[in-house]
This record gives sequence, C-alpha cells and structure tokens, in this order.
Amino acid sequence: MYELGVVYRNIRRADSDLVAKLGAFGTATVHEAMGRMGLMKPYMRPIHAGAQAAGTAVTVLLQPGDNWMLHVVAEQIRPGDIVVAAVTADCTDGYFGDLLATSFKARGAQGLVIDAGVRDVRVLTEMKFPVWSKAISAKGTVKATLGSVNIPVVCAGALVSPGDVIVADDDGVMVVPATLAQKTLDAAAAREANEGEKRAKLAAGVLGLDMYNMREPLQKAGLKYID
Amino acid sequence: MYELGVVYRNIRRADSDLVAKLGAFGTATVHEAMGRMGLMKPYMRPIHAGAQAAGTAVTVLLQPGDNWMLHVVAEQIRPGDIVVAAVTADCTDGYFGDLLATSFKARGAQGLVIDAGVRDVRVLTEMKFPVWSKAISAKGTVKATLGSVNIPVVCAGALVSPGDVIVADDDGVMVVPATLAQKTLDAAAAREANEGEKRAKLAAGVLGLDMYNMREPLQKAGLKYID
Amino acid sequence: MYELGVVYRNIRRADSDLVAKLGAFGTATVHEAMGRMGLMKPYMRPIHAGAQAAGTAVTVLLQPGDNWMLHVVAEQIRPGDIVVAAVTADCTDGYFGDLLATSFKARGAQGLVIDAGVRDVRVLTEMKFPVWSKAISAKGTVKATLGSVNIPVVCAGALVSPGDVIVADDDGVMVVPATLAQKTLDAAAAREANEGEKRAKLAAGVLGLDMYNMREPLQKAGLKYID
Amino acid sequence: MYELGVVYRNIRRADSDLVAKLGAFGTATVHEAMGRMGLMKPYMRPIHAGAQAAGTAVTVLLQPGDNWMLHVVAEQIRPGDIVVAAVTADCTDGYFGDLLATSFKARGAQGLVIDAGVRDVRVLTEMKFPVWSKAISAKGTVKATLGSVNIPVVCAGALVSPGDVIVADDDGVMVVPATLAQKTLDAAAAREANEGEKRAKLAAGVLGLDMYNMREPLQKAGLKYID
Amino acid sequence: MYELGVVYRNIRRADSDLVAKLGAFGTATVHEAMGRMGLMKPYMRPIHAGAQAAGTAVTVLLQPGDNWMLHVVAEQIRPGDIVVAAVTADCTDGYFGDLLATSFKARGAQGLVIDAGVRDVRVLTEMKFPVWSKAISAKGTVKATLGSVNIPVVCAGALVSPGDVIVADDDGVMVVPATLAQKTLDAAAAREANEGEKRAKLAAGVLGLDMYNMREPLQKAGLKYID
Amino acid sequence: MYELGVVYRNIRRADSDLVAKLGAFGTATVHEAMGRMGLMKPYMRPIHAGAQAAGTAVTVLLQPGDNWMLHVVAEQIRPGDIVVAAVTADCTDGYFGDLLATSFKARGAQGLVIDAGVRDVRVLTEMKFPVWSKAISAKGTVKATLGSVNIPVVCAGALVSPGDVIVADDDGVMVVPATLAQKTLDAAAAREANEGEKRAKLAAGVLGLDMYNMREPLQKAGLKYID
Repeated sequence: MYELGVVYRNIRRADSDLVAKLGAFGTATVHEAMGRMGLMKPYMRPIHAGAQAAGTAVTVLLQPGDNWMLHVVAEQIRPGDIVVAAVTADCTDGYFGDLLATSFKARGAQGLVIDAGVRDVRVLTEMKFPVWSKAISAKGTVKATLGSVNIPVVCAGALVSPGDVIVADDDGVMVVPATLAQKTLDAAAAREANEGEKRAKLAAGVLGLDMYNMREPLQKAGLKYID
Repeated sequence: MYELGVVYRNIRRADSDLVAKLGAFGTATVHEAMGRMGLMKPYMRPIHAGAQAAGTAVTVLLQPGDNWMLHVVAEQIRPGDIVVAAVTADCTDGYFGDLLATSFKARGAQGLVIDAGVRDVRVLTEMKFPVWSKAISAKGTVKATLGSVNIPVVCAGALVSPGDVIVADDDGVMVVPATLAQKTLDAAAAREANEGEKRAKLAAGVLGLDMYNMREPLQKAGLKYID
Repeated sequence: MYELGVVYRNIRRADSDLVAKLGAFGTATVHEAMGRMGLMKPYMRPIHAGAQAAGTAVTVLLQPGDNWMLHVVAEQIRPGDIVVAAVTADCTDGYFGDLLATSFKARGAQGLVIDAGVRDVRVLTEMKFPVWSKAISAKGTVKATLGSVNIPVVCAGALVSPGDVIVADDDGVMVVPATLAQKTLDAAAAREANEGEKRAKLAAGVLGLDMYNMREPLQKAGLKYID
Repeated sequence: MYELGVVYRNIRRADSDLVAKLGAFGTATVHEAMGRMGLMKPYMRPIHAGAQAAGTAVTVLLQPGDNWMLHVVAEQIRPGDIVVAAVTADCTDGYFGDLLATSFKARGAQGLVIDAGVRDVRVLTEMKFPVWSKAISAKGTVKATLGSVNIPVVCAGALVSPGDVIVADDDGVMVVPATLAQKTLDAAAAREANEGEKRAKLAAGVLGLDMYNMREPLQKAGLKYID
Repeated sequence: MYELGVVYRNIRRADSDLVAKLGAFGTATVHEAMGRMGLMKPYMRPIHAGAQAAGTAVTVLLQPGDNWMLHVVAEQIRPGDIVVAAVTADCTDGYFGDLLATSFKARGAQGLVIDAGVRDVRVLTEMKFPVWSKAISAKGTVKATLGSVNIPVVCAGALVSPGDVIVADDDGVMVVPATLAQKTLDAAAAREANEGEKRAKLAAGVLGLDMYNMREPLQKAGLKYID
Repeated sequence: MYELGVVYRNIRRADSDLVAKLGAFGTATVHEAMGRMGLMKPYMRPIHAGAQAAGTAVTVLLQPGDNWMLHVVAEQIRPGDIVVAAVTADCTDGYFGDLLATSFKARGAQGLVIDAGVRDVRVLTEMKFPVWSKAISAKGTVKATLGSVNIPVVCAGALVSPGDVIVADDDGVMVVPATLAQKTLDAAAAREANEGEKRAKLAAGVLGLDMYNMREPLQKAGLKYID
C-alpha cells in the first residue's frame, strides 16, 4: 500500500476456473453474493456499452499526469489478468491509448480498470479491448515519476490486492479477494439457483409482495393502504 | 408529500389519449408548450440511447439504500403507467434490476424514472424496458424502512403528483400535471404546426434572423457589425 | 474577449487543407503534437459515439439561458466552419436543437462545440450533425440579451480565437491556433511516422520498456524488482 | 408551480408564534419531528457560520442569470418573512447583494434562501442578514424575463408553498408546511423533552447501546463480538 | 498560451494606481463595470473569510502534481504582483504551502490565485497571505516537468495575461486586462457614484421597483398581480 | 474488509507517544514523510477552521442512511482514539450530532472522521469536538442494518486499519499504518530539522531556485528565459 518504486513479480493469482465462473454471474450477482461489499464507485464506467471482463488483478499505482508505470506493469501481465490502475491523486488525464492496449492485449490482458482517463476510445472499442475508467480524455501524460506494481491499491473506493478476482460489466466493477472467491462463487450459485423460476412467476404477474412474503413484515412496520 | 408509510390505491390518472399525444411530441416540444417548466434536472439520463416513453405517474418515495417500496408500488401499477421514484436523500445505489423490471413490465408499466441508480442495464436494454436514472450501479439495497406510494414527490427537482403525465426521451424527463395536459397538448400542437415549413426554409439557407424577424430587435438592443 | 454586442464579420480562417490534415490525425495525436496543450476539459463529450469533425472556429459568446446569438452566428458560418459557443456563466440549458442544426448545416457548418447543453439529440444524431457539449437537456432558452460573435472566447477551459482549427472526436476537442497549424501538423506527422511499426512490435509482444529504452532510466530513478 | 408572470399578493402565512417556537428547535430537531422529511439538499449552506433564521416563506421563481423578480418579491415581504428563491435551471450567478439586502431588511425579511449564488457576502455578514445559498459569486445578472412570486416552488429539492415555515441554521434549511406546523412543533417538543437527561447520562459514560436498549435488537440482527 | 519551458522576464504591468483604485471597489462592482465579463468561476474561494487583494498578474502554467514552476515564478515577482497559477489539467494537489508563501511575500507578492489546491492553510492565514484556490489539500507535488512563466493562461475559466489587474475578495476573482483598466475604473466610479443615496432610499423602505422605474416594463412584459 | 455484522474488541493500537509526536507535525509534513501516500481525498473538511486532532483509529463501517453502528462503536472507544467511519455507498446524511459527540467525548475520543455528513455543527464546535466530514446535513438516519466495527475500511479513498495513526487538521486527514509510525516520525523529524533555517532564508529574499539548487536541472530540462 505504501511502498513506492517497487515491482512485485510473483503474486498469487486466484484460480482461473473460479474467475471464469464468477465472471459468468456478472457484477450485480457477485456483489450480492459477497454481502454487498467490494464494488468500485459507480463513476467507473465502461468506455462502450456491453463490455464484459473477468480476470485476476495485476495492480499499478500511478502518479498524477504520469503513465510511466503502465509500461512497467505491462511486463507483469500474464494471460487472464486485468490491469487495475490507481492514481495517488484525482486525475482525469488520458493515461492509456491504442499502443498500450496493443501491448497489454499481446501479453494476454483481459482488460483495464483505471481510476483516471483513457484515450483512443474508438480504436479501443474496435480492438474489443474492454476498459473501465472515470473519464475519457485526449490529455497526454509524462514519464517522470515512479509508482509501484503489484502492491495493494485503493481504486475507485475499493481495496484491490494483486491476484484478486475482478469482474466488470455494464453495471460496474467488482473486486473479490482471492481468499473469498470460492465462497462468493457458492453464494452466487445459490442466489441464482431459482432465478429462472422467480422470473417466470414475475412475468406471469405474481407480485414480489407475495413471492417474497413481504405483506406481513410491511404491515408490522406500519404500512397503511388508503382507498 | 410528507406522509410516510402510506399507499394511496386510488389515483386520478391523466387521460390516456392525451398521454399518447403528448408523448408523440417529445420532451423538448412539451417543455416549450408548458412555458419552459416541468423538466427534471438534466442529470436524469436514459440507460440506453433512443429510449422513449410516455405514461401516467405512479409515484414512490424510497429511503436511502432501501428498495422495499419498489415491491409495494408494483402492485399499484396499471397498464400505461410510468413509475416515478424519489429518494429521501441523495443515493446512487442500484435499486432496480431485471427481476423488478420483469414484474413492472408484466403489470403494464411503460418505464421507470428513478432519482437514484439501477443495475442489470444490459438485460433491461434487451428487454426494451426504458429507464431514466441518475446513475448505474451494481450496488444492492436492503428492505428495512417504509416510504410511501402515490404521494406527491420531488424527483430530480420536479414535483410529480400521482396521475401526472410523464414524457421521457433522449433529451430528458418532463412532468405535465394532469390538469394542464390538454392545454399543454394544444400549445404543443400549435408550436409544431409549421415546424416542417420552418425546417424546409432553414434547410434552403434562409436564416433564423430573417425568418423570425430578429434583425430589428437585435439592432435596437445595440448589436453592432464590424467588418 | 471583453466586447459585448459585437459581430466580427471578417475573420482570418486557418487554411482548409491544414484543417483536413489535422483532422485526420485525431485529437490525441494533435494534442501531443502541440506539446500537450490546447485541449478542452474532458466534460465536453460528443452526443453520440463515433463523432468526428474538423473545421475553422467561428465563435459565439452566449448569456445564461439565452440562445439569441446562435441565430446571429448562423449568418457568419462559411462551409468548413465549426461553431464554438461559450457562455458567460455555467449553464446546462438546451441552447441548440434540430432547427438550428438544419440552419447551421445548410450554411456549411461541420459541427458545434458548446460549453452548455443541447436537445433533440436523437434527430441531431440522425442528421449526422456532430455536436460536443457538456450536457443534454430539453430545457429551452430565451432570446433577450446580447453576446458577441467572433471574439476570442474561453470554451471549456480553452482559449479559442476566430479562425482557429478545431479537431474533435470521441476523445475530446482540440484547439489549434491558426498560427500554429502548420507546425502542429508537421509534429503530428513526425509522431505518427513510425506508429505502424511500433504497433506491430507491441502486437508481437515486444515491451514498451524495451522499445522505448526505459529500463535504464527506471533503474536510475530507483525502481526495484522484488521476487 | 407552473404559472409564469404572476404575483400572488395574498398568501396565508403560518402563525408567527409557531414559527418562533419551531425556529428555537433548530433544523435537525424539526427535521426529525417531521418524520425526516422537508429538508433541502445539503449543498445549501449559510454564507457565514452561526447563521440562524426562522420565518414564513414568500417564494419567487427566477430565470437563469436574471434577478428581475427579486425586486418584485421585495414588495410582497412582510415582517417575519423569509424569501425563498428558486431558479428554472441550475445557475450559480450572484443574484443578490447588499442593495437588495438593504431593501429586504427594510421590509422586515428575516433572511434569504436561494438555490443560486449571492455576492457582497462580506457586507451581508456585517449587516447580519442571514443567507443560505448554493454558491457565492460576483457574477451579475440581467433584468429581462419574468418569473413568478408566491407560487409553490421546488428549491434545492424541497417543495415550498407560500406561507410555509422555514427554519434554517448551520445544519441546513427545513420547510414545514403551514398545515403541519403545530403537529411538528408538538413532535419536536416531545423529542426534546428529555434531551437534557440523555445528554447528562451520555456525558457520564452511559452508552447509547444501554440507554436506548439496543443490545437485544443488535444481537437478533446477528451482530457478533470477537475478542 | 502554447509555449512550454519559457520564462518571460519583462512584462508590462498595469499602472499601480489603477490597481489600487480598482481593488477598493471590490470584485462585484468591477465585474459590473466590465460589462459582466472577466470573472473566474465561482469554485475559486479564499482560504479564509474576509480576504482581499489587488495586484498585477504574474502568470505561471503548472503541470499536474508538479510545483516546480512555482519556484521559477518566485523570481519574477515584483512588489504589488499577484501570482496567477493555472494547471494543464484538473488537479487538486496542494502545490503551495508556508515556505513558498514566505518566499512570495518576501518578494512583495500581494497574494496567490491558483486553479488547484494549497496546504498549510492555518499558517497562511496567520501570515495574512491571501490565497484563492479551488481546493485545500495536504497532497504534495513533485518537481519534474517544465511549464512556463508569464505567458497568457486560462485560470478557472478566465484568460489572464501577464500584467493584467487582479481584484479578489470574498465574492471571487476578477481579471481586468491592463488595456481596459482605466475604462473599467471610470465605469466602476460612475456606478458607485450614487450607491450611498440608493442604499439610503432602500433602507428607508423605498422599493427598487420604484427607484429603478421597473413597474412599467414589468407590466409591458405581462406581469400580473392576483389578489 | 468484507465481514458484516462483526465487532472486533481487541485491536492493536499504535503507540500513544508516536501518535502525539506525529500529530505535532501536522498532515502536510506527515504526508511528505510517508512518501506522499496515505492522505484521504480533499473533500474531507473540518467542520470548523483550526481543528486539529491525532489519535488511534477505531473503525466502523456504516450502511447508507443508517447510523446504528455508531452506537456500537462508541463502546469500543478508548481514550486517545479517533473514530473513522466509512459507508458502503456514497451518502451525505447527518449520521452524527451532539448526543453522539457527548458520548464519544465521554469515552475519550479525540475526534471523528466520517465519509458522510454530520449535524449539530454549532454545538459540536462549541464542544470543541473536532470532526472531519464530507458534508453537513440535518438529514437524520435510521437504525436498521448491521455494519461492522474494527475491520479495515476504505474511508475517502484511504485504507484505514484499526489502530492506525490518524492525523487531521485544516489541510486534511492522514492515515499512518501502525507499522510505519516510527519510520514516518523519523522522516518527518528529518524533514522539519532545518525548516526554520529555510524559512529565515526565504523570508530574507533568498530564492528557492538557489536554496534548492534548481537552476541547473531547470536549464538541463530546457527552460529558457526571454527578455
């Protein structure tokens, strides 16, 4: 968290099978399965609608207006990773564009989550390289000051440790600690088990009030109907 | 406005024919026709481009981080309604997702306008269930505290009474009080009457300066041309 | 900058050939070529994805909630221009819609850049008239107070003089002073010269660390690798 | 709510004795007494610390960048009133300064609540004329477009009808409908009845957990203590 | 505006007598006297209430998270100057603290206007060194990348050229171009000429409606009174 | 980080002597001493100017609009602690007022840092109970949903573990992990060692350019002076 100028080369990544399964559930279900924790702030948005990604986090801490460490983190990417980039201060500059995306993709990255801005978004979209960011900006950056790679970082309000599972889609970005991946997957599976049945009932006009047995607790809480 | 824990079951809805006709004009024209009043703040955005809806308001007041009352309001929906959801405090949580959308749709709802966040936006888009919100967020909510249904609410800066006409599209969300619906419709029709003619003139290169006879008032206001 | 109620009719426009060539590079490259200056703030966004435009600036200074001068500026548009609209105070009202767009397009405008709101965005999108704005809002405006046309303005944090080159795309809006257009074009061309080669290398797995010879300066700056 | 260009001269004001008593409780207590409703959004701040005011609302609806109606509302002020100013669109201009404050004060106004900006704040502070606003700005306004006086308005997210009770202090601005004033006062009095006793207990080290008997419900909710 | 890495040593400063006289009027009056132009955005706030300053601008363009050029600009300060600092991108870091304030003060600076953050605000307040900024933050900066000194800059939405008059107080920050200083001063003096008389009338209960002869134009605009 | 409904009773607090010494340096110096890490976002502001506090963190995770856990955390406070409160979603409600402050103070708390709103700020100021918050709001909260006490939390962008050192003043809020407290203190002391000497030199007119030997590196970076 507090080391500058270091690159950790060996990190323990969450199991790739768990990652894939969690990714299939999507952020909303995984978020509920983790007890409504682990979600990044909602200003993190995909640069194009329909983006979806899941992977293991390689983290990078950047300095304001400086993308030097994105070149350093590229070397640490392994197939199946998602790069999670935090900045030491609020910044909307365009740290990342099509050349870095080409490099990240060649290394096997599944996407980028960055608490700052990106650019070349049309090309990134064409490349189908998914990115979640807080801004889009053509503003370029310098390469002058060190940050770190693969230390724990706070990105958009969420703590991310190297190797954590990242699940991202139109609804936002979830962080599942590697140690909670299996438990969260089980909870997600349990939660989804009878979703189809519920959906069919609701589509048939059954009310959630009845399906979830809410009428009694609502009445106890004092709800009054007035004609 | 100030009753908690109540559900009004009988509301007077604006005439469905007026609703349909106002909807056909779109928010910008209806807004002008109402004397430039009645528009929600521009942070209310459709979750996908091209969304359009018109309906009668059923209102719901929610508590921060708590979507219990969305299940209560579902029962009050009649075909042609749009649910308008306000929150007692600023909140971006994802109060609404695909299951509630399935239920609302089954009840005949034309859409949702919510001064908070929603989730499952990809599925909502596929379902063609139009939603206007101030945020998109996977953050889930609890079911613990009462609000109210079908009381007047302030949603995104606009007062909405149950039964009011809601017109929503890419440009925002308009509220037309039921009592002003006919008058607003007449004004909208008058305003649009010669729109086609105006558009044709402008397309042919005629200037608004001339078409609207602005040159004299501009000169009187002191406008000077410098070569 | 500080004259109200004036319209400058004769402005010196940047060379149209330079405009076209700069436009072909896009904002990110032009921004780098100008030494990372001249970019508007990133809250300026295209109203639809994929928008691209380049042109010479005709400028207009508007008053809050008042679009009178947009009719005045229409007359000053020449084919190849982009209208750049600033407001004397922060305002998100919808100053511009499909009728003005029809007029601007008929005059040969390539697009609009406005530090305020616009409306009728669905029609504008269908018309393929590109607009960059800070808001979308159905809120209409009055026609009561003078501003100015073709004076230097500050738009979204950037100084724009009449005749400057505007390059706009998904990544934002760049302003290139007419006097710097050739020099910026040369720098952009030089920068792009071996982009293809770089991209190919990166795609083949070569790291930016090696391609840009960053390892030594990183080491000198104190970067440490930990296994 | 939706009438432009009208001034209602006769409004029914809440009883001045109720106003004074509600004012003495302050916004936080009055807010609780009204069931946690009626509070303006927290961006409304006093221009100087320690400001306090209570009065009956005279309302004014302003246009963006235009303070003409503040002169119209001045005539409608009676001793004990607070002016509540809404704007038809978001605006931070400085609508109000020392001359208008002198006039409002001479008419007996207790203060101003404005969903926009004010200026001359040093003089206003010296005059001890309390103001709650969303911005401070030297930006001046024009006098060109009509609004209305003494119609219901939405100000900072709260509905305000002419004659309502306004209570404002460092914690924000509360609106109590005239019809709820007595009931709210009673609830506030009941709430405050044993505040002194509670404060003494807490000051002596008694925990809220015990004083409010929270331990059992917390345990039922599943709270676990870990040593 | 677009030169990086340059320091202009010889700038033409506005006349110090004009500066003093403009400063005595305050920002609101000077703003009106300049035709309601030249004001920085209202997010620029003094770090303590009651701050007042007037001076000639020495300008500096900074890079995000980098305060190197503040040391360069210190050498260019002459007694009576105010440093105006812009940043090439949005940044809230604390660029300036008590040591730089000591240096600036020793050089004769009247204050600092910075479109970013500052720190050590308690000491700055004790030193009576006035500062207007958009943020307060303990976040420090690096010294790695060049900006420029005494080029025209856009600061908080206003163009500032070296030598311009800066007037700043509780209401915000005004920029008066050196060439407009005399004319603006004359207009300010004319505006203030009978302010005392106006204030006395208003204090005596005369209405602005009558003092400014607004009743007839309001009636013409259609204002209706309803009893 | 991810446990809900738990209260850790035994936490390892940083040494009180280190806390006092770090507090004496203030946030700006401690921030530099920790390598420019550990600062909360600058939206966290003291509720009154001049506030200062240092203590060991007891942490609490709250739900939106729900302050139940503030009563739970009160019991865990020991003399010298500062309560650090995070919320699972963005919320500006007034979670904390004079009664809770009385209780916290009685338990020996040095202050409160809360990523949400507080109320009763006038009384809190009179009580000299220092609070840093992101908002001031009279909006009350419910007591319905569990959070946790003394788990690691992310508060205003910073990771806070129970027992960490918190240093807060007008410039913001710093978090020093207990394990880094001694090292950070040493670095702060070294940094401050010759501050007095530096200040005296700068006050005497010596330039930072010379005192820090910046002229050569600036020249190497390409800085040019133009007469």
